[in-house]
Formats: sequence, C-alpha cells, structure tokens
Amino acid sequence: SKSYTVTLLPGDGIGPEVISVARNALQLIASIEGIEFKFKEMPMGGAALDLTGVPLPEETLSAAKDSDAVLLGAIGGYKWDNNEKHLKPETGLLQLREGLKVFANLRPATVLSQLVDASTLKREVAEGVDLMVVRELTGGIYFGKPRGFGTNENGQEIGFNTEVYATYEVVLLTKVYLTTGCEPLVFLTVNLLSQIDRIARVAFETARKRRGKLCSVDKANVLEASMLWRKRVMEIASEYPDVELSHMYVDNAAMQLVRNPKQFDTIVTNNIFGDILSDEASMITGSIGMLPSASLGESGPGLFEPIHGSAPDIAGQDKANPLATLLSAAMLLKYGLGEEKAAQRIEAAVLNTLDRGYRTGDIYSAGLKLVGCKEMGEEVLKSI
Amino acid sequence: SKSYTVTLLPGDGIGPEVISVARNALQLIASIEGIEFKFKEMPMGGAALDLTGVPLPEETLSAAKDSDAVLLGAIGGYKWDNNEKHLKPETGLLQLREGLKVFANLRPATVLSQLVDASTLKREVAEGVDLMVVRELTGGIYFGKPRGFGTNENGQEIGFNTEVYATYEVVLLTKVYLTTGCEPLVFLTVNLLSQIDRIARVAFETARKRRGKLCSVDKANVLEASMLWRKRVMEIASEYPDVELSHMYVDNAAMQLVRNPKQFDTIVTNNIFGDILSDEASMITGSIGMLPSASLGESGPGLFEPIHGSAPDIAGQDKANPLATLLSAAMLLKYGLGEEKAAQRIEAAVLNTLDRGYRTGDIYSAGLKLVGCKEMGEEVLKSI
Ligand SMILES: CC(C)[C@H](C(=O)O)[C@@H](O)C(=O)O
Ligand SMILES: CC(C)[C@H](C(=O)O)[C@@H](O)C(=O)O
Repeated sequence: SKSYTVTLLPGDGIGPEVISVARNALQLIASIEGIEFKFKEMPMGGAALDLTGVPLPEETLSAAKDSDAVLLGAIGGYKWDNNEKHLKPETGLLQLREGLKVFANLRPATVLSQLVDASTLKREVAEGVDLMVVRELTGGIYFGKPRGFGTNENGQEIGFNTEVYATYEVVLLTKVYLTTGCEPLVFLTVNLLSQIDRIARVAFETARKRRGKLCSVDKANVLEASMLWRKRVMEIASEYPDVELSHMYVDNAAMQLVRNPKQFDTIVTNNIFGDILSDEASMITGSIGMLPSASLGESGPGLFEPIHGSAPDIAGQDKANPLATLLSAAMLLKYGLGEEKAAQRIEAAVLNTLDRGYRTGDIYSAGLKLVGCKEMGEEVLKSI
Repeated sequence: SKSYTVTLLPGDGIGPEVISVARNALQLIASIEGIEFKFKEMPMGGAALDLTGVPLPEETLSAAKDSDAVLLGAIGGYKWDNNEKHLKPETGLLQLREGLKVFANLRPATVLSQLVDASTLKREVAEGVDLMVVRELTGGIYFGKPRGFGTNENGQEIGFNTEVYATYEVVLLTKVYLTTGCEPLVFLTVNLLSQIDRIARVAFETARKRRGKLCSVDKANVLEASMLWRKRVMEIASEYPDVELSHMYVDNAAMQLVRNPKQFDTIVTNNIFGDILSDEASMITGSIGMLPSASLGESGPGLFEPIHGSAPDIAGQDKANPLATLLSAAMLLKYGLGEEKAAQRIEAAVLNTLDRGYRTGDIYSAGLKLVGCKEMGEEVLKSI
C-alpha cells in the first residue's frame, strides 16, 4: 500500500484546531483508500518563536523538505506583531516558501451555491463566480534585493525594497573542478529556469484545464518589472494558442473584481499584486473560512494552507471554520500526491455537510445549524 | 474682483468632452460669484504625443506651474499602449505630478443615496459609505531609483523597480556663494520635508476634518519601506491625539473594503497601494463616473481630475458622465482656490440634477431620464 509522509504545521491561533480536524479526515480517507499517512507535527510561526526563538526552526524546514507534502494551519498573532523582522512569524512563512521553492501559489475563489448569500455582493453578481488566482510566490518585492534601511543623499532615513523579475531561460556553462586538481575537467550545462516563464506556464496550464481564459495582471504602464513580465507572458502565449490571453492593470483588476468577478477565469500576477487581489477575490465569495490554497514548486513537496489567517480573537474557542483547511487537504491529495479520488471524497463530504445545513459562525445564516470547529469536523467525517 | 488662471488639460478619449462641460460650469459660477477665470487649454497625454512627440510638452508643464490650479480630463488610449515608456501618455501624467510636486492625492469614495443601487454591493453594505483615500503620489515604487532593465548575475534579463520612502525632516546648512567672491558669505538653513511626514500630516488633518478616524495601510509584515512608514506614522500620531489611528495590511484592506467599507473614514497609504485601493473603493460606490480627485503640494497649484480613465470605447459619442469632472472642478474651487461657496454651488447643482432624475448611461436605471454628456452638463448649468 502507498505510504506518504505529511508534515503538519499547526502554527498559531486557530491553526491547531483546524489542523486537528484535517488530520482526522486524512486518517479516515487513508483507511478507506488503502493508503498510509505518516504525520509529523512540527512547530512554526509564533509557536516556534516561543519554543525555539526562531519562526522557522531548521528541523521544521528539513522535515518539510523530506516529506511528500506540507499542510499548514495559520501563523501570526498580536503577541509577535512588533517583533523585529527576522523574528516575525510571517518571516518564517516566507522562509518556508523560499526553502521549499514553491513559486506557484494557486488560490481558487469559488462562490458555492449554498453560500452565495454570505457574499456582500448582490446575488446576481456573486452567483457562479469561479476563478483561480495564480500568484508568483518566491520572487518580486517580497524577496528582491537590495532591501533594508539606510540613509539617502539628503541624510534622511529610508526604508527600501526592490521589485524585480527575471526572464528567459539561459544555458550556463559551469566549470566543475575535481578536488584533486585545479584544472577544469568537466563542463556542465545548467538550465536556469526563468521566474516569469515558469509561473506563466503554470498559469497557462491551469487556464487550459479550466475555461481556457487567462488574464495577466500587472502595472506595465508604470513599472519596468511589469513591462518585462508582460512582454515575456506574451511570448510564452504562443505555446498555448488554445488559451485566450488578456492583460489588465492592477488598479483596474481591483475594480473589475468588484464590478463583475464572473469575467475572470484564471488570473496570473506577481507576488504583491497576487497577495492583494487574491484576498480581495476571496472576500468576494463572502466565505474566506472556505478557501484553500496550494503552493507548488518544480519538484519536491507542495505547501497547502487555508488562505485565512490565525484569527487570534477566536483562537481556542472552538469557533473556527475548518472547511478551508479540509479543502486544502483535498488540494494536497490532488496536487501534492496525485490522489485525485481521495481529494474528491473530501470535497464531496464538505459540500454534503453544507447541504445538510451545518454552518460555523462565519457562514451562518438563520434557520441553519450553528456548530463549532470540532462538530463541523465530525459532520464532515460522517459525510466521508 | 478676484481673477484666477486655470490650466485646462483635456487630454484624450472622453477628456475633451468632460472638460468642456466643466469649463462652462466654472464660467457660469464665475459670473455669479463675481470672480474671473482665465482659462488656458494645453495639450497633454496622447494628444500631446500626436502634436509634439512628447506626452508632457514643456509649455504645458510651465503653463500648469504658472497657474492657480490645473484641471485634467483623462489621458491614454489603445493607440499609445505599446509605446516605449518615455512615450506613454501615463508617463506624461507622472511627469506632471512630479513637476507640480503634488504629493498628496485625495480620493473620496462616497455612495450617494440617489445612486446606492448602482453599487454591486448589497444595499445595506453600500449605503452610507463615505471614505477618503489619501494616497502618496510622488514617491514610492512609481519614482524610486534604481529602476530599469538589466542583467542579473545569472545572465538573465531583469526588469526592476525600487519601493522607497524617506522619513524625518532634516535641517541642512547650505552655503550660498556670492557671484563676486569664492568664500561663503551666507548660511541658509534648508528644511527638507520628509515624504512620510508630509503625507501623514495631510492625512491626519483630513481625518480631523472628517470623522476623526485614520487607517494607515501598509505591508509592514514584509516590506522594510512599510516598516519605516508605519513607525513614522505612529510617531506623528502624537501630534494628533484627537485622531484615532489604526494600521492595516494591504491585503486585509483589500478584503475589508469589500466586507464592510463603512468601517473606514480616512485611509492613508503609499503610491502603489493607493492606486489599487482607491480604484477598488471607487468601484464599491458603483459609479466611478461620479468620483473626483485632488492632488496637492506644499504650495503651488493643485491638480484636479476625475478618477475615471479616458474610456476610448465611448469617446466622441457624447456618452461620458461629466459629473466626476464637475466635482473635480468643485474640489479645485475648494482646495485649490479656497472658493468654498463656489464649490458648494457645483456640488449642490450635481445633487439637484440627480434628484431631478437625469442620468448618463453608466448610472442609469429604469424609469429615469437617460441623457448624454452635453445634456447632463446643461442640466447642471440650469441647477446652478
Ligand atoms: C503573512 C503574509 C506574509 C502572507 C503574504 O503576504 O504572502 C499572507 O498575507 C499570505 O497571503 O499568505
Ligand atoms: C495612469 C496611471 C499612471 C495612474 C496611476 O497609476 O497613478 C492612474 O492609474 C491613476 O490612478 O491616476
């Protein structure tokens, strides 16, 4: 029977509660599907800071790297908000993404027919929204150098960051020296993967499997980093003649998501614009407690996490909605392990539980059954 | 009688149509209020590119600088979309903002009771929204250096920009030489104004005149430029104990604008986040054809423009909504010239025209009177 190692990173706030629900669901799925999960729970974020002094301990990163997939709850909280940069929970998350090289972040925003009234948008605008944001996750202004603090030519204190994207795959000749000699003995060709190319390809492939429409969002009327992005995305488009490509400026995209979100199928954008637009898109569905995400690299384990935060205000009160984490576990099964059937089992069980009227507080409306995190988890287990 | 020079920059697309309406309204206001306007119409954007080869001719910038206020229609269009950076209409707009040193961009987003149904948000969410985005306009990633194209250490082509903000006013001693000698004769103290300080002060002052609440939006959990921004905004807050200050990450702000826009009074943020959030906020009102903006500097003329674009698809068809430009003219009177009473006349006339049921296509709903740009302008003139 197949066996997978899954690293669980409960993290902070409501993280442990929702991860515990997902773990139970995965366990049950395993027994049904005849597969085996070896879970390894590791500290991460604020929890790791309190325990070890750093937000991403080396043991956590290497456990994650050595596993088949990683499931994260949530990180962060008021307690660590004023920490210095390298001691912020968020820095741990960025290090994890960088360490796992998960450059492609898939964030679906779907309005379920059961939850259409949870949206603040009018029914006719929200109904049927089904879009996917493909966000570049390990480049751009989040990681660009130089960055830091300093003094400008006027003697003023400055804080600065670099938005940068690289294009084109280039073939490099690397000299490999044997330890015994000092003359180059072997020449290796190294294929450097381009940041823009690889995220664009993931986005075109994603659009192809969906409704065949891709909208690339940038600020190419102002930023050079965006101009290069747009140019390269247009070049790569020739490999995907079946996908309809359009371009939109980020300010317009922020408007169009409110005006008519149904116009979008797949959106591809850079790290910071993706951060903003995927959160906006998720709120349009009205139920961010429902939305999963997958972060994938070229190879190696993917990172799966609900898009909601650690919600410190309701932590430990059994009020959290575990469905986003359950759906993240489904993405883990599908994108991370290729266990499509097991993934569908979770997805179907979530829908079935909603159909049976169970709701956590964030998606509750009159006449339905209000339950806590644990009970919601148990109901989904029953549906599985 | 008071006389003002106003530079009119019709620009591209629907720009000339809406500017012509605003000019007539200002003219009429002048005769009523006993003031005088000297209008100077200058080419700008794509129109200037076609005429002179550059998007902001020197004559246009110096006319703007020499006037008491500048009213801009809109710029841009498909025709120039693929121009090189220095030949884009947008570059002309950035040069104009930089040239006029208008660092503070005020963008109100108000849901008028007459137009609440134009919003895609549910009535109870949209009703009563009345917020102001104060966007830093001449700094950040729009202007930060270094920027451009190049090659990274792997030989890959890169496009890069710098997000940078400076803090603290510093006092410099500048030596002034007389042309006849070579020894310094006079020492001048020069007060360098800090980018963060001055925009924060405008925002605190604005919040004070409104409902006393200021939300500073940044990405201080990731970006150094934002960390410095937040730190300095917090320091300046001590000068405004009567204003309630809060902080929000930009991704959360993009969500909260959809979830519950009424929670906001005044928002202050950097150039790129302000670009995105102010457009999102404007769409929440459902009527971007209604929204004006003001861009102000320390001294010198302000720049006033509707927040909508040049709408090339409806240009020249007498379909544009001139109300955003009329309300921009009202902001010009109020913030630019201190003619509060004249400003109120325009605002009241716009509301009265809406009350009388006149609507352009973008805000039309069944049972009301559909009119074109010109007729809408004439109705507002009647109301004045
Ligand atoms: C916590 C933060 C660093 C993170 C990000 O900005 O990427 C979060 O907002 C997200 O979108 O996953
Ligand atoms: C046209 C463009 C350069 C401009 C900007 O990004 O500032 C516009 O989007 C705006 O918001 O005024």
